[in-house]
Amino acid sequence: MHISYYDLTVPVFKKNLLIAKALLEKGLAHATETGMSETDFLNLRLAPDMFPLVKQVQIVTDNAKGIVARLTGTDAPKIADEETTVTELMTRIDTVLAFLDTFKPEQFSNAAEQKIVLPYIPDMYQTGTDYFVDFALPNFFFHMSIVYALMRAQGVQLGKMDFLGSLKLQPIE
Amino acid sequence: MHISYYDLTVPVFKKNLLIAKALLEKGLAHATETGMSETDFLNLRLAPDMFPLVKQVQIVTDNAKGIVARLTGTDAPKIADEETTVTELMTRIDTVLAFLDTFKPEQFSNAAEQKIVLPYIPDMYQTGTDYFVDFALPNFFFHMSIVYALMRAQGVQLGKMDFLGSLKLQPIE
Repeated sequence: MHISYYDLTVPVFKKNLLIAKALLEKGLAHATETGMSETDFLNLRLAPDMFPLVKQVQIVTDNAKGIVARLTGTDAPKIADEETTVTELMTRIDTVLAFLDTFKPEQFSNAAEQKIVLPYIPDMYQTGTDYFVDFALPNFFFHMSIVYALMRAQGVQLGKMDFLGSLKLQPIE
Repeated sequence: MHISYYDLTVPVFKKNLLIAKALLEKGLAHATETGMSETDFLNLRLAPDMFPLVKQVQIVTDNAKGIVARLTGTDAPKIADEETTVTELMTRIDTVLAFLDTFKPEQFSNAAEQKIVLPYIPDMYQTGTDYFVDFALPNFFFHMSIVYALMRAQGVQLGKMDFLGSLKLQPIE
């Protein structure tokens, strides 16, 4: 039994980008309450040599648009990494949400066989399938998880359902 | 274009459980070097109200066996949460690796239509597909990411490739 690359990407990334927006909103409200500046909030890190919050969100959006573009053989819009406020990050997320909305399931018809070259391994490629399970999926959820963990480490009142978002449920008959 | 539930789970979880073992090994070596006890190492947390490392690893293994069992309509072995050493956690991971090895792709033939009831939402179910994208996938990689982040936050020398593991690459001809 199979699942389509469309179903594994476009709706999943849309859901998770909306979750990232909700996390940023709650996190900024908490920062404001505790007297933390927006700049300090966006520069939160889990370790000195890990990327700050602003970069984690930039990477989440880059992953979402880049994965879909690579699996469909299309080009993703470039977005300069220049956000300095949560509002600007929200706009970036909205830009990617709008990009994701342009995709149709049939554009993924060749996803498994795409030859995907990662920028830092220029002389090799991954098949779409290998790229998806080896790289795309773990990396997307890694950066989502770090965004959530940065909020938790600051004491923002969140639980796992703030990370997972709403679940599609059916009543047992 | 589609990908099978087998390919999205069994080899992915096996790869990631081996990554978790490598992270634990490097983390314990670093703890030993810096004079941290194994108990303190296993109790590392990113936030006071987040689970400690030992529980994060227990959950990663529970997710791996639970997701595969639910999607195939089989039973996963129960493992008591009693590990107090890294060696015992390694044994737990090996138990789950051996369980994953028993699965064949054809056992996932009904994965998308499984009716999956989460223990804490007993009167509702998710279809296999909804469970997989809403819950299983983000949750598995969340706990993997937290294991990695706990190491990074302690100063263990790791980079993203320690989280992603080896990538299946082909030479460009």
